[in-house]
Amino acid sequence: MSSGFFGDVAPIKFEGAESKNPLAYRWYDKDRVILGKRMEDHLRFAVCYWHSLTFAGLDPFGGMTFERPWFQPGDEMAMARLKADVAFELFQILGVPFFTFHDRDIAPEGKSLAESNKNVREIADIFAKKIDETGINLLWGTANLFSNRRFMAGAASNPDPDVFLYAAAQVKNVFDVTRELGGQNYVLWGGREGYETLLNTSLKRELDQLGRFLTMVVDYKHKTGFKGAILIEPKPKEPSSHQYDYDVATVYGFLKAYGLEKEVQVNVEQNHAILAGHSFEHELALAAALGIFGSVDLNRGHYQLGWDTDQFGMNVPELTLAMVEILRAGGFTTGGFNFDAKIRRQSLDPVDLVHGHVGSMDAMARALVAAAAIVEDGEFDAEVAKRYAGWDEPMGKAILAGDMTLEDCAAHVAGSNLDPKPVSGRQEYLESLVNRFC
Amino acid sequence: MSSGFFGDVAPIKFEGAESKNPLAYRWYDKDRVILGKRMEDHLRFAVCYWHSLTFAGLDPFGGMTFERPWFQPGDEMAMARLKADVAFELFQILGVPFFTFHDRDIAPEGKSLAESNKNVREIADIFAKKIDETGINLLWGTANLFSNRRFMAGAASNPDPDVFLYAAAQVKNVFDVTRELGGQNYVLWGGREGYETLLNTSLKRELDQLGRFLTMVVDYKHKTGFKGAILIEPKPKEPSSHQYDYDVATVYGFLKAYGLEKEVQVNVEQNHAILAGHSFEHELALAAALGIFGSVDLNRGHYQLGWDTDQFGMNVPELTLAMVEILRAGGFTTGGFNFDAKIRRQSLDPVDLVHGHVGSMDAMARALVAAAAIVEDGEFDAEVAKRYAGWDEPMGKAILAGDMTLEDCAAHVAGSNLDPKPVSGRQEYLESLVNRFC
Amino acid sequence: MSSGFFGDVAPIKFEGAESKNPLAYRWYDKDRVILGKRMEDHLRFAVCYWHSLTFAGLDPFGGMTFERPWFQPGDEMAMARLKADVAFELFQILGVPFFTFHDRDIAPEGKSLAESNKNVREIADIFAKKIDETGINLLWGTANLFSNRRFMAGAASNPDPDVFLYAAAQVKNVFDVTRELGGQNYVLWGGREGYETLLNTSLKRELDQLGRFLTMVVDYKHKTGFKGAILIEPKPKEPSSHQYDYDVATVYGFLKAYGLEKEVQVNVEQNHAILAGHSFEHELALAAALGIFGSVDLNRGHYQLGWDTDQFGMNVPELTLAMVEILRAGGFTTGGFNFDAKIRRQSLDPVDLVHGHVGSMDAMARALVAAAAIVEDGEFDAEVAKRYAGWDEPMGKAILAGDMTLEDCAAHVAGSNLDPKPVSGRQEYLESLVNRFC
Amino acid sequence: MSSGFFGDVAPIKFEGAESKNPLAYRWYDKDRVILGKRMEDHLRFAVCYWHSLTFAGLDPFGGMTFERPWFQPGDEMAMARLKADVAFELFQILGVPFFTFHDRDIAPEGKSLAESNKNVREIADIFAKKIDETGINLLWGTANLFSNRRFMAGAASNPDPDVFLYAAAQVKNVFDVTRELGGQNYVLWGGREGYETLLNTSLKRELDQLGRFLTMVVDYKHKTGFKGAILIEPKPKEPSSHQYDYDVATVYGFLKAYGLEKEVQVNVEQNHAILAGHSFEHELALAAALGIFGSVDLNRGHYQLGWDTDQFGMNVPELTLAMVEILRAGGFTTGGFNFDAKIRRQSLDPVDLVHGHVGSMDAMARALVAAAAIVEDGEFDAEVAKRYAGWDEPMGKAILAGDMTLEDCAAHVAGSNLDPKPVSGRQEYLESLVNRFC
Ligand SMILES: [Co+2]
Ligand SMILES: [Co+2]
Ligand SMILES: [Co+2]
Ligand SMILES: [Co+2]
Ligand SMILES: [Co+2]
Ligand SMILES: [Co+2]
Ligand SMILES: [Co+2]
Ligand SMILES: [Co+2]
Repeated sequence: MSSGFFGDVAPIKFEGAESKNPLAYRWYDKDRVILGKRMEDHLRFAVCYWHSLTFAGLDPFGGMTFERPWFQPGDEMAMARLKADVAFELFQILGVPFFTFHDRDIAPEGKSLAESNKNVREIADIFAKKIDETGINLLWGTANLFSNRRFMAGAASNPDPDVFLYAAAQVKNVFDVTRELGGQNYVLWGGREGYETLLNTSLKRELDQLGRFLTMVVDYKHKTGFKGAILIEPKPKEPSSHQYDYDVATVYGFLKAYGLEKEVQVNVEQNHAILAGHSFEHELALAAALGIFGSVDLNRGHYQLGWDTDQFGMNVPELTLAMVEILRAGGFTTGGFNFDAKIRRQSLDPVDLVHGHVGSMDAMARALVAAAAIVEDGEFDAEVAKRYAGWDEPMGKAILAGDMTLEDCAAHVAGSNLDPKPVSGRQEYLESLVNRFC
Repeated sequence: MSSGFFGDVAPIKFEGAESKNPLAYRWYDKDRVILGKRMEDHLRFAVCYWHSLTFAGLDPFGGMTFERPWFQPGDEMAMARLKADVAFELFQILGVPFFTFHDRDIAPEGKSLAESNKNVREIADIFAKKIDETGINLLWGTANLFSNRRFMAGAASNPDPDVFLYAAAQVKNVFDVTRELGGQNYVLWGGREGYETLLNTSLKRELDQLGRFLTMVVDYKHKTGFKGAILIEPKPKEPSSHQYDYDVATVYGFLKAYGLEKEVQVNVEQNHAILAGHSFEHELALAAALGIFGSVDLNRGHYQLGWDTDQFGMNVPELTLAMVEILRAGGFTTGGFNFDAKIRRQSLDPVDLVHGHVGSMDAMARALVAAAAIVEDGEFDAEVAKRYAGWDEPMGKAILAGDMTLEDCAAHVAGSNLDPKPVSGRQEYLESLVNRFC
Repeated sequence: MSSGFFGDVAPIKFEGAESKNPLAYRWYDKDRVILGKRMEDHLRFAVCYWHSLTFAGLDPFGGMTFERPWFQPGDEMAMARLKADVAFELFQILGVPFFTFHDRDIAPEGKSLAESNKNVREIADIFAKKIDETGINLLWGTANLFSNRRFMAGAASNPDPDVFLYAAAQVKNVFDVTRELGGQNYVLWGGREGYETLLNTSLKRELDQLGRFLTMVVDYKHKTGFKGAILIEPKPKEPSSHQYDYDVATVYGFLKAYGLEKEVQVNVEQNHAILAGHSFEHELALAAALGIFGSVDLNRGHYQLGWDTDQFGMNVPELTLAMVEILRAGGFTTGGFNFDAKIRRQSLDPVDLVHGHVGSMDAMARALVAAAAIVEDGEFDAEVAKRYAGWDEPMGKAILAGDMTLEDCAAHVAGSNLDPKPVSGRQEYLESLVNRFC
Repeated sequence: MSSGFFGDVAPIKFEGAESKNPLAYRWYDKDRVILGKRMEDHLRFAVCYWHSLTFAGLDPFGGMTFERPWFQPGDEMAMARLKADVAFELFQILGVPFFTFHDRDIAPEGKSLAESNKNVREIADIFAKKIDETGINLLWGTANLFSNRRFMAGAASNPDPDVFLYAAAQVKNVFDVTRELGGQNYVLWGGREGYETLLNTSLKRELDQLGRFLTMVVDYKHKTGFKGAILIEPKPKEPSSHQYDYDVATVYGFLKAYGLEKEVQVNVEQNHAILAGHSFEHELALAAALGIFGSVDLNRGHYQLGWDTDQFGMNVPELTLAMVEILRAGGFTTGGFNFDAKIRRQSLDPVDLVHGHVGSMDAMARALVAAAAIVEDGEFDAEVAKRYAGWDEPMGKAILAGDMTLEDCAAHVAGSNLDPKPVSGRQEYLESLVNRFC
């Protein structure tokens, strides 16, 4: 029986590009086969619990704007159950195959960790049934180690080892729940794993604490036989002044330092990419090049604002460039596109939640079509291959194989009076070419 | 015999804090002993050749403003010799112990690399004599692998292996010259080792090329018995849209990936730190924490401008925080403070070159005095130690030693009903405390 | 009788620069005469109610960290009275001459505006007594037109005229209270007077609404005989994506458009200046040049973060440059330095509130000493006067008087074969000179 | 007779959206009628001389990469004539109706202003013939008052009135040439009309100088009967640290201050908009709302870079939002889209110049089609009208008419116990809707 929250909004159907129905998909046709795979299997969309069900519209200068039934005072667990019902109604309206959550999104915090964990399990049991009924699965679970004041100075990187212990215990519970629900990944976002001021901070200590924590999680994964991926989500700052998981390159160095680069992958978010000074496609391409690409938090940042706005991505050409990198990386395995995106606090109506997702799913589906066409067409790959062709010649190979010393190089240049001539990078041609596809 | 370029500007003397002579040091008293070491040995100032002697005042919207005698048309090598004379006059006026250069700063590019190298050697021979005469030494040398159009798409990371070869040959020459002149380090700044657009770029190929190049340089260092450090200077962007040596954390990951983290250190620049979204002291503290702190390019960026302004650092409290991190890292060994700073293009007069250096040397000397007082006072260290004290207790040690699993942590929390209480981070107190020292 | 909130923290005394007591002033000696005026009369410090008493430590990723007695559930007006007691204890501990508030900081919102207004008045009556007892005065009052969800799309610029009416009614009440308490200014900060997306916005309509609203306030000022200044506080964005009062220049244009440039001045905030891409001293100097300088919100932004961090200003050289502009503008008349600064959410202890203010008051006092020395010394003014000296010659005066046409200029250049020669801007000399004073 | 520079590149033809020919227009069909006007008349494209013909590929870290025939040493006027030939070949290949130039782009600077002016006139005479032959007209001319070292500290805002005189004389010449060539506008971009440091600057003096200069130009326009518009191009910074014409709002305030708001309009550039913290469409919508919208410099900035990259705009959804604002403003009258965009310095080949323009013209043409559809569809306008409908009711009108005082508002709220309820801003719906059109 429906909660009635979404009124008469029916499940969203694919109606084709010419449809003018804002509550229809114009591009997302989940069974359409692209490059040999169904759209749904390419995109693996997930709705996130926190922004869509738990966010109440607060911002740093204003209070709640979303007056949801489950924000009423009273029996918190009853409210959590209502929220779960509405959540799955939303997932079904959208027709997404996955969802994601933090422990604190789904159930109220108790007086002790034991009670909090019990609350989480109680809702998880409801999820298990709903997963069974709907076929909508868990893309990943994660622990909220940042909202409670106990984590104000970090979780694993806290100056107080008791907080480390508490965080570890909390992660164990969410990890177990995630595994039991058939979650395909487990994510760590360390929003408080950073510092507010260096004046009171030991970087070295905190990095070692983080390395230890992550190792524990990896060990536990192996012990429990969890088949999914462990994912770190980089972000440069906010809420901390500096976060240790700054960006993909930083996370890679951290993983290497603690011998975890084969165990852990990254969950790349567009908004975090641009806050770190990178394009979205850069972070994706780099993750792939370093062998740690895992999953994606899909949203968009606001280019004129300096914080995490987590808006729904709508710009098709931008999404296309990102999708090209994902296709080049072989597409998702356990990962997917999680909508870490929230409607604006002025978007008061339940249907606004639907519009945000439908609009962005459609934009991404269209980007997939364009990206696949780019890959199939092959012109970009051909341009790149031509540009680096010299490295496939004997001298290029010899250099990369380590067969040339600095002196050998110098001798070669002297002997041949080498004077390399630059060739056009053809950037404008390539940029224009993108527009042929999207 | 003096070139007369600096007119009647005499060598700068220390006159004490009360002096109102702008051509005197108020704080930089090179023989003053601070924490058991002479100021000069702490600070190891170097004047750079490129900004002070080679920069002509151009900016993206305007041409030459500095009408130096050595920018006259005519015999380029004669001009280079004149420039060398003026350079050492400047070094002597300032009383700095070191200088730095790129090959292309000191001598004109020839018709071939052989000719260019010959030009460099000819000036290096002059340097050798001047070093002998003045006792002013070479802090580091480096190759300019970015100005010539052949490097427009990178040097080691160029799609054309011929450019890699050329760059390697050029580096060998500058490396040899640096070693022979008694240079204390060799620096690589990869301004073009990045990309302009991902559309024409293979990240993976370019990273591998860079790894190979750096390995060659390290091999050559060992073969030639060079005792100094190999340094990479991180910068996130400019001139490239994205530079592979983005920041300290990125360089560390890159070094780890190619097994070079024990061979190569970083040369941290303030302006590059802030362009990457970090504070200066962050990059210094992180380099120290990761064991790759080497040297510093001293300047300041403009907080309202989005490019590398390379201004002379003047803000004593900011420089103090940086100096504290350097002292904590044990101070410089082969490194030093290189003034990678340029006078504004409106600062037309020779004496402006002197003002920039004197003002910034003095600010840095004062920052050293303040930083040393902070270290000696011990209050900051005590606050940090107190904050992390729990990690020196048995449970903290057990965690870090790897003796606790995720399940152990969970059991501990459950068993003790652990509920950690946050304590004040005391940021305002600590920030105020800084002002007691500077 | 004390609330006991600050424990044994006694009123802060001036102890001189050598004091190591963190709960003493080292520079702020309120009766010390600088340039013929007492320090207190120069600086006119005010503590703000919102950050110091009302902020609970929330940030976008975490909840309350400050467990103040007045945040307890229960009788809200009783809590407001307790808060007022603690507020004046803080003001007295610090020895500041002023405070500031929003209506919603001091009293709870009621079920109707009438009830809210009544609550405000009730606390205002308490303030009146406390002002009388302590001699601590109101620098300015202001209305909170941004926290309640009714203002989510703006107050005066709301698409719904009912919200305009409500806002006007609310302002009338705070204005009356401010006037009756002897407030020296009335401030408007339009945090929601902007837009979230242009897609649903009419700029023209909203600007006209704003112009009308401000005109009403000005009319009411004259009608009521309020002697203080009406102040607008510019900010470029946050919480809105774009705020109409972007910066000083934008506010000036707006005032001119609605004929209010002689009626309204600006309240300049450092953090808002840098969010708009300006230095603090730029906004101050521009306000003075345009004749609309009024007051200052003193804080500092974080150069690596893209949002309003409202930290306590501590950097003496930066504050000195700001103070120089204020002295040049003739100093404050009705305005003052309002601490729109908040302690970090990890600064849990009551004494942290004291440290933040004491540290920043001391930094500002020291900046005043330095700025006064700069002004008295006269070297900067002399350099500027010399640089523009030509404009005081006959031709310069004729140009500015409008006596020269474009053709006259062309004829003059042709006739004299004029070829102006640039002279050094001496930036490095001037930057170094700043350090002689601070 | 062709210069042969573009080899066998033929004039670009419209071939339709399905064409795969990169040297064809897929969307720009100049005679296609959109909203009752030919595409060419809507878009009024102009190619700029500086980036396309004069830029040699330099950047702050590297020298010339474009080895154009006209950059050869030798007879500078012969080179300028060759450049003019190639310029018109480019214009004809592209089929644009307009071009733009600075005086210094088209002819070499002489030993005196008289000689420089003579050079400009000589090339202008060639232009006159070419305009006659080709029907390609001058959109606007402008004076380069920033490259020569005499302008390093500003032109009109220079501390030396001789520079003001020189600049005025130079402007007179370009203005005359522009008028005589039938130029449709005259543009002023004050790249050096700002400051490098406040330490040596009098804001008040410089603003007054600028006001005087602009008044002279306006007076001269009227005297000479020039029918076109005078345009100021805002930019916040670069090359100066702060430019007086920061953004549209700042220029408006400046015009109001000097009584010129009816005489002068703005030339809005995308890249300058984002450097000032605004979206492109914001600056356009604001200019229209303030009644000063004139023309557009079409390019795109790089969201990850902090300087003016002046790239060719290619993102259709972004260009669509801009075009909607232009259509709402009534479209261009004397203005147009000037390509203030440059190919990257690695784009060495002549054909790269063609690709940049063709790609961006096509993107803009497609944006026009989408924007026109948005306007015709009317859904966005209807949403906005509905949102503000209350302001067209009696009370809304009374407020705006000035018939309500603050007291009236308060009485109305009290009397009606008014409690306005917020309604959804529907941002996600509207963002999704954009994608239906582009
Ligand atoms: Co995310
Ligand atoms: Co985010
Ligand atoms: Co450097
Ligand atoms: Co630099
Ligand atoms: Co403020
Ligand atoms: Co603020
Ligand atoms: Co432009
Ligand atoms: Co530009």
